[in-house]
Amino acid sequence: MENERSSTAGKPIRCKAAVSRKPGEPLVIEEIMVAPPNPHEVRIRIICTSLCHTDITFWKMKDPPAIFPRILGHEAVGVVESVGDDVLEFSEGDYILPVFISDCGECTDCISKKSNLCSKIPFQLSPWMPRYGTSRFTDLKGEVLYHFVSVSSFSEYTVVDTANIVKVDPSVPPNRACLLGCGVATGVGAAWRTANVEAGSTVAIFGLGAIGLAVAEGARLCGATKIIGVDVNPEKFEIGKKFGITDFVSAKECSSTPVSQVINEMTGGGADYCFECVGMVSLVHEAYACCRKGWGKTIVIGYDKPESQLSFSSFEVLHSGKTLMGSWYGGLKPKYDVPVLLKQYLNKELRLDDFVTHELKFEDINKAFDLLIKGKCIRTVIWMASENVPPT
Amino acid sequence: MENERSSTAGKPIRCKAAVSRKPGEPLVIEEIMVAPPNPHEVRIRIICTSLCHTDITFWKMKDPPAIFPRILGHEAVGVVESVGDDVLEFSEGDYILPVFISDCGECTDCISKKSNLCSKIPFQLSPWMPRYGTSRFTDLKGEVLYHFVSVSSFSEYTVVDTANIVKVDPSVPPNRACLLGCGVATGVGAAWRTANVEAGSTVAIFGLGAIGLAVAEGARLCGATKIIGVDVNPEKFEIGKKFGITDFVSAKECSSTPVSQVINEMTGGGADYCFECVGMVSLVHEAYACCRKGWGKTIVIGYDKPESQLSFSSFEVLHSGKTLMGSWYGGLKPKYDVPVLLKQYLNKELRLDDFVTHELKFEDINKAFDLLIKGKCIRTVIWMASENVPPT
Ligand SMILES: [Zn+2]
Ligand SMILES: [Zn+2]
Ligand SMILES: [Zn+2]
Ligand SMILES: [Zn+2]
Repeated sequence: MENERSSTAGKPIRCKAAVSRKPGEPLVIEEIMVAPPNPHEVRIRIICTSLCHTDITFWKMKDPPAIFPRILGHEAVGVVESVGDDVLEFSEGDYILPVFISDCGECTDCISKKSNLCSKIPFQLSPWMPRYGTSRFTDLKGEVLYHFVSVSSFSEYTVVDTANIVKVDPSVPPNRACLLGCGVATGVGAAWRTANVEAGSTVAIFGLGAIGLAVAEGARLCGATKIIGVDVNPEKFEIGKKFGITDFVSAKECSSTPVSQVINEMTGGGADYCFECVGMVSLVHEAYACCRKGWGKTIVIGYDKPESQLSFSSFEVLHSGKTLMGSWYGGLKPKYDVPVLLKQYLNKELRLDDFVTHELKFEDINKAFDLLIKGKCIRTVIWMASENVPPT
Repeated sequence: MENERSSTAGKPIRCKAAVSRKPGEPLVIEEIMVAPPNPHEVRIRIICTSLCHTDITFWKMKDPPAIFPRILGHEAVGVVESVGDDVLEFSEGDYILPVFISDCGECTDCISKKSNLCSKIPFQLSPWMPRYGTSRFTDLKGEVLYHFVSVSSFSEYTVVDTANIVKVDPSVPPNRACLLGCGVATGVGAAWRTANVEAGSTVAIFGLGAIGLAVAEGARLCGATKIIGVDVNPEKFEIGKKFGITDFVSAKECSSTPVSQVINEMTGGGADYCFECVGMVSLVHEAYACCRKGWGKTIVIGYDKPESQLSFSSFEVLHSGKTLMGSWYGGLKPKYDVPVLLKQYLNKELRLDDFVTHELKFEDINKAFDLLIKGKCIRTVIWMASENVPPT
């Protein structure tokens, strides 16, 4: 017997969304229409979503690839409301996490253990559904609203490709699982999958936002014994201690001495792994300069301006034994690695709780932007149903 | 009972050397004095030496770190004539290979499996013996002759630090063992140790001199199935086939299409490993552009000018999953890895024979320079005793 389909399946849904209509202006909570999913797509009822710096970047950005009006948001969990034709992998009621990178399960990259960059549905900043080049969102005047990185979670309902969805163990609370949609997964994965941090090693982390703190958490899980945090804000050290940071370098107080020199001295020759989590070319250069000669790895996680160039001495690259690499979504393969991280959370190995510093109602979503811009939160979780917001 | 010491032990030796007296001018075969070894040093009778591009670079170079008069040469084998006080690791009569990088066996780097960059006696272009900052060479007027990269093999006798010497299995002929002193070991090691080429993978090699051909040989040994050679000289393809090159890209005929594009098309998305063996920044950029998104590694082996800078798009580094690394002496740890390569040669796995295209008497050493500059040889072996030169 077939499962009963939800009463909304196959029909447009009218619901609330926080629409980004103009660069840098507060999101507008308004009613929108969400079309039913096409084949290879599912429609999701969002339970909660958290705010990532990339949302802010594309909210403030005036020129392409920014585009308006758009539904931002890409760290979220939800429940499948209905599935497109021929979708067998997911069913109504599945508890799921959308992820901004695809995992089609079929292409050379998705089959390989070595790559997490799906070549069938490559990551794109386009404002459309990835397989169709069309939108599932319209406002009540019939105007198209654009998608964001294949997720668009600042809406009660959204449509996501099946390649961008991972099933979540129902015992993981939504306000923890949503963190694995982007920033926290990226940081933990960068230490675990990209760098493959060795037990007993020394790690330096440039920038102690959510990603940098998550790198520390990942490095701690891998058994790193010295985890140096670098930030302009000395308050970050107290916060960082919770995530395994053992030493702190105040980048502000290093005006006369380069940070790389301070770290080279602290570590007797450099850190085994350096992670750049800010998105500043100069910090990548500093990171490279203080990763250990002979075997050090510098991992780029931060996203600078599209036109930025990294520059290295040819002789140093040749003769230093250092490795330079990037980490996109932490090198994680969504459908394979996210379940591992969820299990580590349930086993009380991976600590996600301390990343959530604030929880808000959907109608207060603009406060979340404010908190993140001012550096007052690590992650703010926004609940679609106000009754879920815990009392403060 | 103590071994009998050689009659020359402890005394200066008068012998012939090919001295580089002025930049770019023919070496002068003249008599010189070679002092006895200090503690931690041995004096070696050179059997044969081969010529590497780096000798030519420092022979032509007019400014520091070039210095004159100097005894060049750094690919050689010989026999220990006498040892300095307290040298226990080597004895008179040992058949040995000097190596330009040190392996002190004591420092963090030498103890670690991950580094081949000794931190106790770091590689240096200084013209002195590494532990003392003095020379063991004088000409007959008493003038100091400078050392070169801790080897200086263009002399019947030379003095080398024990950290720069590896014992050689006597069944390996000298005109094969000497190749492992620099170029061939660097290429084979870059594929084997630095890149750790996987069986079944695709490799692209920029520049088919001795190092590039040795990368091909190393990649073939690792089981690479497609080995693409890139060179401006199409004759290199026929030569390259002997070393495992399966496909050839003529860089000269790629004037309208970048080489990287040609390789991306040939391989359906890029080579798993790209090796730059020329020492041109632009070729490193090409190599990076055609190593496989998701897991490709670009390995820098060529040495461009000291001031050269490599430049990469920050976003590409972040988002491509590509790795950039250098390979110094192929990532080989001299005392550990050279014996493995020698064994592979004796087992007829590692093929060294075809690298030697010419053999000359010591007095004809300047012809070896000519052959290498004109690209007419892969390696020319120069025998110190003329009777060893095989008839042509
Ligand atoms: Zn795929
Ligand atoms: Zn994000
Ligand atoms: Zn050492
Ligand atoms: Zn050399």
